[in-house]
This record gives sequence, C-alpha cells and structure tokens, in this order.
Amino acid sequence: MNSFGRIFRVQIFGESHGQVVGVLIDGCPAGIPISLENFQEDLMRRRGGLQKGTTPRAEEDVPLLKTGVFAGKTTGAPLTILFENKNTRSADYEKIREIPRPGHADFVAHQKFGGHEDYRGGGHFSGRLTACLVAAGVLAKQLVGSVKISATLKEVGGEVSIDKGIEKAIANQDSVGGIIECVVKGLPIGLGEPFFDSVESLLAHAVFSIPAVRGIEFGTGFAAARMFGSEHNDSIVASDGTTATNHAGGVVGGLTNGNELTFRIAIKPTSSTPQQQKSLNTTTGEQAIFEVKGRHDLCIALRVPVVVEAVTAMVLADLLMLEQKISRVNH
Amino acid sequence: MNSFGRIFRVQIFGESHGQVVGVLIDGCPAGIPISLENFQEDLMRRRGGLQKGTTPRAEEDVPLLKTGVFAGKTTGAPLTILFENKNTRSADYEKIREIPRPGHADFVAHQKFGGHEDYRGGGHFSGRLTACLVAAGVLAKQLVGSVKISATLKEVGGEVSIDKGIEKAIANQDSVGGIIECVVKGLPIGLGEPFFDSVESLLAHAVFSIPAVRGIEFGTGFAAARMFGSEHNDSIVASDGTTATNHAGGVVGGLTNGNELTFRIAIKPTSSTPQQQKSLNTTTGEQAIFEVKGRHDLCIALRVPVVVEAVTAMVLADLLMLEQKISRVNH
Amino acid sequence: MNSFGRIFRVQIFGESHGQVVGVLIDGCPAGIPISLENFQEDLMRRRGGLQKGTTPRAEEDVPLLKTGVFAGKTTGAPLTILFENKNTRSADYEKIREIPRPGHADFVAHQKFGGHEDYRGGGHFSGRLTACLVAAGVLAKQLVGSVKISATLKEVGGEVSIDKGIEKAIANQDSVGGIIECVVKGLPIGLGEPFFDSVESLLAHAVFSIPAVRGIEFGTGFAAARMFGSEHNDSIVASDGTTATNHAGGVVGGLTNGNELTFRIAIKPTSSTPQQQKSLNTTTGEQAIFEVKGRHDLCIALRVPVVVEAVTAMVLADLLMLEQKISRVNH
Amino acid sequence: MNSFGRIFRVQIFGESHGQVVGVLIDGCPAGIPISLENFQEDLMRRRGGLQKGTTPRAEEDVPLLKTGVFAGKTTGAPLTILFENKNTRSADYEKIREIPRPGHADFVAHQKFGGHEDYRGGGHFSGRLTACLVAAGVLAKQLVGSVKISATLKEVGGEVSIDKGIEKAIANQDSVGGIIECVVKGLPIGLGEPFFDSVESLLAHAVFSIPAVRGIEFGTGFAAARMFGSEHNDSIVASDGTTATNHAGGVVGGLTNGNELTFRIAIKPTSSTPQQQKSLNTTTGEQAIFEVKGRHDLCIALRVPVVVEAVTAMVLADLLMLEQKISRVNH
Repeated sequence: MNSFGRIFRVQIFGESHGQVVGVLIDGCPAGIPISLENFQEDLMRRRGGLQKGTTPRAEEDVPLLKTGVFAGKTTGAPLTILFENKNTRSADYEKIREIPRPGHADFVAHQKFGGHEDYRGGGHFSGRLTACLVAAGVLAKQLVGSVKISATLKEVGGEVSIDKGIEKAIANQDSVGGIIECVVKGLPIGLGEPFFDSVESLLAHAVFSIPAVRGIEFGTGFAAARMFGSEHNDSIVASDGTTATNHAGGVVGGLTNGNELTFRIAIKPTSSTPQQQKSLNTTTGEQAIFEVKGRHDLCIALRVPVVVEAVTAMVLADLLMLEQKISRVNH
Repeated sequence: MNSFGRIFRVQIFGESHGQVVGVLIDGCPAGIPISLENFQEDLMRRRGGLQKGTTPRAEEDVPLLKTGVFAGKTTGAPLTILFENKNTRSADYEKIREIPRPGHADFVAHQKFGGHEDYRGGGHFSGRLTACLVAAGVLAKQLVGSVKISATLKEVGGEVSIDKGIEKAIANQDSVGGIIECVVKGLPIGLGEPFFDSVESLLAHAVFSIPAVRGIEFGTGFAAARMFGSEHNDSIVASDGTTATNHAGGVVGGLTNGNELTFRIAIKPTSSTPQQQKSLNTTTGEQAIFEVKGRHDLCIALRVPVVVEAVTAMVLADLLMLEQKISRVNH
Repeated sequence: MNSFGRIFRVQIFGESHGQVVGVLIDGCPAGIPISLENFQEDLMRRRGGLQKGTTPRAEEDVPLLKTGVFAGKTTGAPLTILFENKNTRSADYEKIREIPRPGHADFVAHQKFGGHEDYRGGGHFSGRLTACLVAAGVLAKQLVGSVKISATLKEVGGEVSIDKGIEKAIANQDSVGGIIECVVKGLPIGLGEPFFDSVESLLAHAVFSIPAVRGIEFGTGFAAARMFGSEHNDSIVASDGTTATNHAGGVVGGLTNGNELTFRIAIKPTSSTPQQQKSLNTTTGEQAIFEVKGRHDLCIALRVPVVVEAVTAMVLADLLMLEQKISRVNH
Repeated sequence: MNSFGRIFRVQIFGESHGQVVGVLIDGCPAGIPISLENFQEDLMRRRGGLQKGTTPRAEEDVPLLKTGVFAGKTTGAPLTILFENKNTRSADYEKIREIPRPGHADFVAHQKFGGHEDYRGGGHFSGRLTACLVAAGVLAKQLVGSVKISATLKEVGGEVSIDKGIEKAIANQDSVGGIIECVVKGLPIGLGEPFFDSVESLLAHAVFSIPAVRGIEFGTGFAAARMFGSEHNDSIVASDGTTATNHAGGVVGGLTNGNELTFRIAIKPTSSTPQQQKSLNTTTGEQAIFEVKGRHDLCIALRVPVVVEAVTAMVLADLLMLEQKISRVNH
C-alpha cells in the first residue's frame, strides 16, 4: 500500500525514469493558502547537486499543482502534485537487469513483480519519490501551524562534524551514513492512541517509509535499556505536564505528553558506492564484479532531514485533525 | 485506533482492573485447529510470578474462546478470546489519581480522556493487555506455518548475562531495561510494499504498540550509520537471493529478501521502580515524594520477547495472506 | 470484514448458538453516560416474542458492558458489549448440514469456509447479531444528540395496514416482507464526501449489512427515474438551504443539504416460512422436501426498523465526528 | 474519502474545469497488458456528443498513462491515468456562485468547503470524474477475466423503449431519468463477508458514488417486499448451487451464491433541465428564475451503464483478489 494516514491521507506514485513522480493528498482542509514558493525551500533542502557529497542529478523539481487548488487555496478536494522527470539517463541502468545492485530493490522487486517492474533507476523504489513526500510535508507543515518540526543531521560517517564525515567519504571514495535527530515543539498533550496507534507506532511507520532508514529511537532510546528506572523516569514538575528531564522524548503510554517530542534515526551509507562491488550475474549465474555508474550521493543522509520533517508533519497533521485541533475549513 | 492489520485484523480491549481483557481477530482463515494447549506455552512465557525480577501477580491467564471456534477449529468468523481479571487489588492504585506516576500513562490519559479514563492499574494502558497480543500471536504463528519467529533477550541492565543484570537490579533495588533480538527464518522474497507499507514500517508500527519499547533497528541498525557503503552492502551470492553478509537484516527496498529477517528492540527500565520518586500532586500543585506500592516487575524486558514474537507473527500473517501464500481456508 | 466506520468503528462477532454474540466499539468519545436502561427500549423493539408474527425465542438480551465503561461513563477506550446466548436449541438445526435452507447462508457459508462454519442456527450469519448492531446504535444515538433518527414500517405483505399484512401472513401460513422508511432530522449541511464516501454510499453500505434487506432508495428513489427534471429538482427557498420540495431526500452531490434525510428499504419475506419447501439434499444429491422447524418470524420486517436506526446512527456518528461536530471528549 | 477498495484501491481526483481529472490505482497486480485501445470502447460508451439526448461537450478523452505501466504492462506499482480538460468554457458557470443550481452540489459544496471549492462546472463534483471511474473499470474488467459484467438501460423517462423516452424528453424540452440493470456472470460462490462487507454493501457503496443514482435493488428487490416467502425463496437444484429461480439476485447471506448476480439502479433526471427553474439568489436573498446555459444531457442515464459496470468490476476485482482467485502477478 502506497498510502498513509487516516484523515490527512497521502499517496505517492511514479518512477524514477518514467514521465512523472507525484503525490495525491486526500482529506486536506479547504482554504489553506498554497503557492509554489511554499515548496521551494524544502525541495531545495532535499535536492541534489548543491552540496559536497550529493548527486549531480538536478531535476528542476517544480511542483505542478494539478488538482485541489483554486484561486491560490486548497479546495478540500483531492490535491495532486506532479514532478516531471526531465533529466533521465536510462542507459545507465540497463545492466541492473542482469546484475542486481546490492542494497537496492533490484533483486527483490524483480522477484515480487515477476519481472514486470520498471527497473530503470530503481523505478518506483527510487529515492526520487521522496520529492513527493517533501511536497506533502510542505502542506502538512502549513496545517500543523505553530507546531515546529526540525530535523537535523547530527553525525556523518561516524563524525559529529559533518564536514569531516563527508571528507572521509571523499577521501575513501566510499559512501557513508549518518544520524538524524528530529525535535517537535508545541504539541498538545494526548496525541496518539494506546497500543496500535501509539505516536511512536505512527511515526516509526512513516519514518521507515523513507529509503535507507535502518533504525529509530525515541528520547533516550537504546541507551534507556542500560539505565535504572529511577534515572530514566521523568518527574512531572508542573500542571501542564512539564517534566524535569525528557528521557521519554515527549511520549508516554503512546501519547504525547506536552514536552518536546524527540527521536533519532539511523541512515545507512548510500548503497551506490563508487567502490567496486560483487553481485550475482543472474543470467550466467556467476559472481560479477561491477561499478555503479549512475549519479549518486556519497551520503544520502545529507538529503534526508527534510524528508523526516515531511513524514513527521504528515503524521502530526493527521493526529491533530483526528483530535479536532485542526479545523476542516480554514476560513 | 486499537486495531491492526489489513486482512488478519487484530483488535485488543479491556482494562487491567476491569472484568476482562480480550482480543478480537477478524479475517482468520477457516479450519485452523485451535485448543487451549496452543496458548499455554506462550502465555506462560509472558506470565509473571515465575522468574526472579517479575511481578508476583498471577492471573490464571486461561484464554476463553468465546466466538469463531467450532468443533476445535476456526470457522472463518471473527474470533474472540477473553481473559478474566481475577486477581485485582484496585486499592493499590487509588492514589495515582492525585499523583500521576512518572513513566506511566496516568497523566496523559487523564488529559486526553478528560478524567473519564479507568485509572485503576493503568486501565486500558496496562501491560496486562499484552496477554491479548500473545493470544493473537499464537494464532498468527499457527498461520505462518513453517516461518519461524524467535525473539530472545540479549542484554539486561547493560549486562549480556541476563542473570547478572537481574542481580544488579535486585542489589540496587531499582528497575532495569534490556535489549531483545528477533530473528525470522523461512520468509519468502517480496513481502511488504515500497514506501508506506515497507516491512520495516509494519513491524516497527506493531512493535511500538508494545509498552516500554523505545527503539528498533533492523540488521546492523544504528551501527550502519558508521559503516562505509562497501562494508554495509550485502553481496548476492546465489539465485535464491542469499547474501554473503546480512547487514540489511533481510529487508531491502522495504521488501523481504529471503535472508533471515532480524531486528533489535530497546526496552526501557520498568517505570514502577521500588525507589522513591518525585511527581506532582495534581490536587495541591506541590511536588510529592512517593513509592509505588503495586506488584511490579524489576525488569519488564524479561516478559517482552514472546510479545515481540506475537506482533511479528501478526504482521507476517497479514502479509503472507496478502501475498496469497496463506490460503483463506485450511482444508 | 466485520467492522464499519472510520472514527466511530463498530465490529460485531459471535454465533447464534455459541456462547455469546457481541460488539466492540472503538473510537467512542470519553464521558458519555451509559447504563443498562439506555439499551432497554431499543433492544425491546428488536426483540422477538412480543408481537404477532415474531419468533417466540426470547433471549433475555441483557447487554453485558465488559470494557470501556467506568463509573457509568465511557472511558474513551474500546467498549465491549456481550449478549449471552441462553435459549439455544441446536438440535433444530442439525439437518441443515444436509439440506441447506433456501434464502439462508447455509450453502454459501459451507462453500466459503470449507465446511468449518458453525452451522447451528445460521451461526455467525444469524439475525441474532442484529442485537449487537442495536446496542452500538444506542450508543451512536446518544452521540449524535439532537439529530433525530426514526425508522418506521410503512408496509407489510403489500398492505399499508400493518395488522392486515400480518393477518394475511397468518391466514396463508406463509412469511411476508415489508417496506421501512427512515427519516433523519437535525443534520447539518455538508456531511459526506463526493463520490466514494457519499452519504448515500455510506448509508447503503451500512443498511445492506442488515440481513433481509433487498433494496434502498433515497428521497423519491426509483420513482425519480420516471419524473421530468423540472419536477424532480428541489428549489432552494431560504439561505439555510431549505428546499420547497424534498425529492432528493436531503442529499445532493453526496452531501447532506440540511433538509430531512429520507430513505426507504425493502425487506424480503422471512426465508424460514412455515410452508413446505424444496432444496437439495447435499449428501444424496437428490431434491428434498422439508419444513423448517426452528422458531422464526413470519415477518422479520417488524423487527428491523430499530436496526435501521442503529446503523444509520453509526454512520452519522462517524460523519459528525469526522466533521468535528461531535467532540472527542464529553465534559 | 475519495478512495475505494481494500486490495485493488481506486482514488479519483480533479475538477471539471481544472487542468486534469484522473485516477490512481494501487494494488493492481503486475503483468497485466494495458494499452490505449483497451480504454477506447468503454470511454466511448460514456462519452457525450454521440447520442440524441447527450451533451455536445466532446473532450478527447485520451487516457494518459503516467505511472505504473512499463513495456505495455502493469508493473505492480501505483498506476496513474490522467485526462486533460481541453474543452472548458468556464464563463458558463460564473453565475452559479450567486444562484446555486437545484439538484447540483453548488450550495452544499459552498457550505462544506467554506466557499473555497472550485465551483466551475461543478468542480470536483462534476460527472466528468466518471471518466476516471470508467478507466479504473477497464483495468478491473481485465483483472476479473472470465467474469462478465453487463449493465444496460432498461427504461428511460418511464418508457421501456429508450428511443421513445428520449423523444419524450425532447418533445417536452425537459430532462428524464432511467433504470439500469446490471448482470454479472461467472462469479464463484462465497465472495463477500457476513454483515458489513456483504456483496450488496460493497456494490451499493460503489454504485452510490456515481452521481444521479437514487436507488439500488438486488434480484427481485422492492417487489420482494410484496411476495410470500414460499414464492421468494430460490430452491437449490444442483450441487454447484444453481437455484430454480433467482429472486435473490445471486446473493444470499451477503455472499455470492454462484447464480447470476443482478441488480437494478434508479437514475434521476438530469438536474440541468432546459426548463426555467427557481432558486435562491444567495447575494440578494431573493428567489430567482434562471435557465442553465451550459452543455448538458437530457438523459444522463444514457451514459451511466458503463460507469455501473466499472464500479462493479472494481468491487469484484477487490473481492476476487481478497479470496485469492486473482493472482498478485500475471505471469
């Protein structure tokens, strides 16, 4: 299922080297002002070709607002945004039919879809579709209003200095991963439901839809497993729920507790490393040594924070609408 | 929303000190043999009163098969299992109305439900409801057949020797957390969908519905963020998709790749530590020092592995039915 | 799928001659007063043994509130209501394994569930489960507050005098059907969504979940197909949307228009007629002549109006919550 | 919610006078051959400008396959089809802001969406979006294979001779409605679920998403309410479930019974009649007499049968996939 959300519902579609990628948003309130400028900053943050370590592929990334917008505002009807794929060089990818790239979906997609998948540039599995997530996130951020979501890169290639991490990747001619932290301020108490729709469940669900994510932890996370209860518990110190510490990362019993919501995400090193790699030639059945020739990022983690913000905003917009904190019509 | 799954749908209900807790399973194929014996082993693994460090509360935990079973087999109609609450001492919990326990849902539930929540023993937020997850898991395990799911405790209180970790807790009269690893063998290639229904998304969603879970990582997980791409990539070495290493933990592009599915989970220390704690007296508005008097585990992590197996089995049963690997009728 | 609703979600379960039938309601706001008395009137309206033409089976129909209620109010957690089956005479139904009753689910259930279905008294397909719908409806009616839903029997056995219709059935020793009209007053404008979640779609979906319903029409309904547009169109005469006529039955473009919502439903004659009938003996493969011996209604339509009200209230409660006209917490 | 289906999921979007209308299909199996020719016949059946009584608006109705198709086959990824709106004359519709047209969504949409709706030509509520349903239906029909769905017009303006009905409309310069019958052959036994997902529930839900539908009845339908049980019951005469009569219309207990599935639908007369009409001028608050000037059908029912087939195919494709009668990959 390529859709997410119960009230603010997002569905993404398209292929890396097809005509378009896009996003369809259903359940967006009417009357939200929307313009191309809204999208620019976040799409730029996601975009390649701008930072050391990111891919030179530079789609124009102009969001085409196809439906659901009228006179500069959302109408309440389904909203469609397309991105045209202009800068596609499919020839780079012909070989992956034969030699599936490690770390990519080439092999599994081929098995699942019986060889009918669009294999060019990863097809529907491509990171290109995160542009659609970012676009949905722009709208979701507008909806959540005074709730502020900020994801930042905390570590690259094991280095807390991001520059150093990138230089390491360049020096080694190898790809690296990173750690992203996301902090959300201004949330009301009580978002989420016990058990299956805990805030952690919904956020983790959304975050693992981003390619290359390998782990998520809330608040103190894995380190909590090594603490005593008396250390880990956050004492409530005020009637608005403020706690003295925030080991819980703003979530207790699956519900937001009014403190800052914090979580951290692990991003694996880009699978398309410049290094020579081994895989199976599925035609000959023999091991093959090959180099990935496409345009790729040394550190995809550089581009992911804005995507994390986007899916976080989607989850929160949905929950805030469910809890009736966001009106169905913005007058 | 207290329900989960698209085809094999599980919903849990009930309160710690109410009449019952229970689970309703819709979409289960007809003809699956089911008997009380099936449940015994897993419910015993979850049950308190048996291990050092676990609570002396000993519900009988007899699953009452109320609907959906006939002549010893599932009928295809919704299946209901109840557990009666016999051993409840509500008086222990009266005080939490006034002084919400840190780390528990007391405060947030009160805010969310306007004071109408059943506050006794955590009410609907109680870990008691994990008995229902385990019961659903027993059925799900039967469904997934030759797929073998095994979750084990790898670390307690920072110690790889579990006994040592428990002794540390007892010695310090404080609660401790732990790390659980789950390994799944025998999965076909291609379970999951790109993006929002990636296998990681679904498993993380389910796993975070278990109280006390603070993090999840797949395969190499957070450590992957510090590896080079050339190290992390798993080379495909055989036409069945077998890889030389398994840093990916059996998932690529959101789909199972036929290798062992592996993930690790962080469990926080039990919030109800024997130590004195601080919280707010919501009546007086002053800080209060208090001790939790109920029966509680020093290390809830001891009881969680079977719950992790249960929700994993639920996710996989759903995906295997969706991919038509499990028949709708078991003849 | 035995569940319905997006926010106010209802799931029914159980079998006619099993231990219980029941209903699980998730998403109900907290703080709604609830007591056994609330249920009595509607359950009595549905109950057999009271009117000419209805079955002598008289379950006590006492709703057991198992979860989700505390101190006389809903808690916001899932609410479970069970009805015990006391007065079951399974022996009556043994024969249907061999000779499936026409008009009943015996044959199709056997095929669908591979012979594993609970066949006693129709099992899960029994009209007994409408008690669960009525119970959910009682709660839904409380939620929708000043919105008034009234379903009445307009015709029995082709007679507008209901008594006359029943007498006809008794005189002929045959079962009869009927027509039910439902009118809803006090709805706001704009419930429903264009296309797939039109109010008509949702109501028809819910109404066809009631056994024996064979048709539904809104407003002028089938007769509209024989009118001219100039006759059928309802002129708007006031700024609150009041129309001069109400051929549309209160729905335009799939949305409520603020006028009375009206629809009519056709109920087939009870399948279990006292007359001799033919069917196939599935063991011998020969035609068999048989009489249904169980306790049955000559006119099931007598008992259906309250069920129609119930499912209508469920749909409207869901839509009113979605449109934020019902608060998540009733203070 | 503008989406429908659990496994074969269809979402429609767009506005009558916007850039495009379109449909997004998720969950379609991979490997289904697809070409523009597939769509031509059904889109022509729906298209205006060809028959007496239909609108002269003649969009080219060329489906643009934007995503999910590769090398002439479905890929298993979400499939997007767009129709560009070329022939739009928005000026015709400016006045409806002031004087909402009776029978149209103008007034209710304005209320629901706070005046932010795209009002041109009915915007998102336009019958133009049924082109999207037809496109989804084309794909669904391919999926259901040997199951044959046929909807035909049985009555127009109260006349069983369709020509006569249309002539009546032209002679009276007024719009007329009609009755459509749909017959499905080749269905297996057991599609549907008891209660909320009965086949009638799902089909009625889908059919009422088509604008202008006012009623639906299965098998003998409303006439069943006037029959005796002994007349209405269909005797099973063969071990494959064949019945001597088919009053049930192929559905018993909410499940298909292997006989022909039949239902009838009432279509109201086109709201945009050429006659002078009354409505409210919402600016002046006075009654206004006006004529609808746009291009409209005298009998929209002429164009609806193919749309009925489409939504029926969608429902059945979904159910057949759920029952594992359609494979996830078409090799």
